[in-house]
Amino acid sequence: MDETIIKEKKGVELKKPVMVTGLPGIGLIGQVAAKYMIKKLKGEKIAEIYSPHFPHQVLMSKKGGLRLLKNTVYKIRGKKQDLLVIIGDVQAVSSTGQYEVAEKILDYAEEKKVKTIITIGGYSTGKVGEKRRVFGSANNKRVKKEFEKKGIIFGETKGSIVGVAGLVPGLAQLRKIDGICIMGETHGSYVDHSSAKNVVEKLSEILGFEIGLDELEKEAKTREKVIKKIEQEVEQQMGSGAKKDITYIR
Amino acid sequence: MDETIIKEKKGVELKKPVMVTGLPGIGLIGQVAAKYMIKKLKGEKIAEIYSPHFPHQVLMSKKGGLRLLKNTVYKIRGKKQDLLVIIGDVQAVSSTGQYEVAEKILDYAEEKKVKTIITIGGYSTGKVGEKRRVFGSANNKRVKKEFEKKGIIFGETKGSIVGVAGLVPGLAQLRKIDGICIMGETHGSYVDHSSAKNVVEKLSEILGFEIGLDELEKEAKTREKVIKKIEQEVEQQMGSGAKKDITYIR
Amino acid sequence: MDETIIKEKKGVELKKPVMVTGLPGIGLIGQVAAKYMIKKLKGEKIAEIYSPHFPHQVLMSKKGGLRLLKNTVYKIRGKKQDLLVIIGDVQAVSSTGQYEVAEKILDYAEEKKVKTIITIGGYSTGKVGEKRRVFGSANNKRVKKEFEKKGIIFGETKGSIVGVAGLVPGLAQLRKIDGICIMGETHGSYVDHSSAKNVVEKLSEILGFEIGLDELEKEAKTREKVIKKIEQEVEQQMGSGAKKDITYIR
Amino acid sequence: MDETIIKEKKGVELKKPVMVTGLPGIGLIGQVAAKYMIKKLKGEKIAEIYSPHFPHQVLMSKKGGLRLLKNTVYKIRGKKQDLLVIIGDVQAVSSTGQYEVAEKILDYAEEKKVKTIITIGGYSTGKVGEKRRVFGSANNKRVKKEFEKKGIIFGETKGSIVGVAGLVPGLAQLRKIDGICIMGETHGSYVDHSSAKNVVEKLSEILGFEIGLDELEKEAKTREKVIKKIEQEVEQQMGSGAKKDITYIR
Repeated sequence: MDETIIKEKKGVELKKPVMVTGLPGIGLIGQVAAKYMIKKLKGEKIAEIYSPHFPHQVLMSKKGGLRLLKNTVYKIRGKKQDLLVIIGDVQAVSSTGQYEVAEKILDYAEEKKVKTIITIGGYSTGKVGEKRRVFGSANNKRVKKEFEKKGIIFGETKGSIVGVAGLVPGLAQLRKIDGICIMGETHGSYVDHSSAKNVVEKLSEILGFEIGLDELEKEAKTREKVIKKIEQEVEQQMGSGAKKDITYIR
Repeated sequence: MDETIIKEKKGVELKKPVMVTGLPGIGLIGQVAAKYMIKKLKGEKIAEIYSPHFPHQVLMSKKGGLRLLKNTVYKIRGKKQDLLVIIGDVQAVSSTGQYEVAEKILDYAEEKKVKTIITIGGYSTGKVGEKRRVFGSANNKRVKKEFEKKGIIFGETKGSIVGVAGLVPGLAQLRKIDGICIMGETHGSYVDHSSAKNVVEKLSEILGFEIGLDELEKEAKTREKVIKKIEQEVEQQMGSGAKKDITYIR
Repeated sequence: MDETIIKEKKGVELKKPVMVTGLPGIGLIGQVAAKYMIKKLKGEKIAEIYSPHFPHQVLMSKKGGLRLLKNTVYKIRGKKQDLLVIIGDVQAVSSTGQYEVAEKILDYAEEKKVKTIITIGGYSTGKVGEKRRVFGSANNKRVKKEFEKKGIIFGETKGSIVGVAGLVPGLAQLRKIDGICIMGETHGSYVDHSSAKNVVEKLSEILGFEIGLDELEKEAKTREKVIKKIEQEVEQQMGSGAKKDITYIR
Repeated sequence: MDETIIKEKKGVELKKPVMVTGLPGIGLIGQVAAKYMIKKLKGEKIAEIYSPHFPHQVLMSKKGGLRLLKNTVYKIRGKKQDLLVIIGDVQAVSSTGQYEVAEKILDYAEEKKVKTIITIGGYSTGKVGEKRRVFGSANNKRVKKEFEKKGIIFGETKGSIVGVAGLVPGLAQLRKIDGICIMGETHGSYVDHSSAKNVVEKLSEILGFEIGLDELEKEAKTREKVIKKIEQEVEQQMGSGAKKDITYIR
């Protein structure tokens, strides 16, 4: 394996597919949202992505198995259109590795005749807020308008988007493929199921699939309580200015 | 994208072009000078440079758009000769990446029949001086003499020139293309519009274009005041030896 | 040498070979176990592995010689099957280098018609225990069952296996080659001959070779005493909580 | 330039050439010795080595010129045999880069029908001694014997040789080219002209050239005095144990 490879199952057929990526990143919004969609909408594993740019490790399973680090592509059957959802253990470790993986994902998207690619990420505010908006950043005006109509908020984010969530729509621009990064507003220092829930909700409206959000809501509430409790404890011990400094909690 | 690419608009025609680069570096002299020239002389965007050796990020715009990090080539129409001015968000992150980008820029220069390449950089003195000279370092004696006649100061700089500003004229030497790095004298710890102004002024004399320097002068004066105020405050608090230690200000 | 190479002696013939790797890693379990097998079972050097991904150094010998860093393949003649044992000075320094070396080892294994690959590693517990179990993590269920029958413990390890010990069976999975990592339980902060002895013992049962373990046992006991003495001294000086903090001892 | 290149002057002819390298390394022994030989024996520049694995910088000259970082090959005309001496500004920055440069040097050596390659390095003892022996480490027994006869000391060095000084004879072994690293004994923390002198003296005996050592001796003595003075000062201020801690002095 001297470059990134995508191994696909035989006989995969897709109906007007939209690609959605949810790889590890800020607040794990993408990962949580995409995994939830795969679970609830009964995604079928159709391809695996391996790369020499991933860390040189294998993962051990509880049952005594081992496997390479990878990203995995799932197919979710939809009424009007199928979804191709990509999740994974890791992202590439170097800049050139990140570009290579992103290009291979785009090669695959083109082969599968994907017209729109949505990457899910988190937008870190450093604040623990009640409100968790869903932002977008698009690779062309038409996509922006389309998603703006459906309630995605544009123009309120600044800075850069690091990794696959940014590079895939960025490189898609050069290939004239529509691409957008959907970002869940989040603190940035902990896993945010609440923000992931908002993202999934928006995607279900936009892509026209029905999905129960109960489990994600429940998980979000449980975690909210834990976070609030930690915050209160920190505040009691350190004074009110300290709550911004809580460290990363998984 | 497994290597650096230059995407050019169709139908670009150039008259005896001189290439000028102004990428991020010491005191942002090159970036400020080149951007100002493009703005005032109505540069036209003719090509974009993308590289897997740039950081693996995309930039978000205020309007909700996103795009890859890139360098951009502008054409400025001149009386006797056209200018090809290259500016950009970033430079490559690794040594091999820097060499690759520099070589691609030279390939493009050769294709466009560029005879002279001028890179703009900053020469850091660590001092906040009234006088900000314009130094040069050339890749052959003839170029040196030519620019010396026009008031560029040679032989008063030492050490090395890092990145595109150095590598492009360095590698140009192997291709027998005339190359020179023009360096604005600067403190090194802050963005120096005043030094950039001197560089633009010199270039306008050398390359024979007319350019109003008012805006650059105004910006320079505003920033000078801010720097001086900070210096005074630091001095008051820390004693007179402290002023050398002011940290980087953008 | 722009990629990893394997230089093989001429005329190597092998009988149903099983590959065993023992490269530097946790507690040096793999290295100690594999070197001991080569020594006691009179392994014959049949191939050398060189890589530009190894550190850019050569080793000096006591006799005034020098040689490149390398991994070496030994053949051990068995009754039913031959062993191909790989040991070495180092592992590759980068992720992509690790993948390349692992793939070259697999190419060689396939060429030699190896059906099963066993990598030896250490599983770090951070505890100095009397008991040192031998764990396994396999790349398919059948291999797992086969080794479970012979007393290897599965499902009690978690996390990841770094380097050749993990990547080789991980990548072997994609080639449909049976692969397993055998891990000796160990503290992790010192070279553990006792755990290596347990691994060799298990392998002799599994692979059906006879090997005297006296020398390894003796070395293990000597080192145990040293470790215990150091522990006691640390404990006396620092209190009983300190013993977990003893540093790495070779 | 996507790989290391060697640009040679036209019409170079050589008589039974021996290659000698003196690149930056421990105590700058190699660099000082090789530069001295080139200067005193009137070496003629015949080739230049450029590499994208060198740092991405150019050097400025006192006269206002700039040039790429490089290694340079000089020809020294001898009675019985010519010398090919390689000196340079830098070594490659990565492991793979070091291997590439070393292989290119060997390709060039083979092309020029070089039979023996001598790399000069320093062997760091951490001691400031009166005696500075000349050690050797060879890539085969025959070379060892040949150089042992001429007074080079073998078998008293241990550890590894980093960079070109080690890799070139190490990789030469795979090509069946005789290679040896000659190491001047040195403290390791300062430039050691005295040790370099001993190396040049030995080489003049071995390779049969006559060279005046006066200038090198003079420089060595001047520097010895400076080092001793610094040592005394450090000792006075810090007590006698401190002298081992003097920092690197060029």
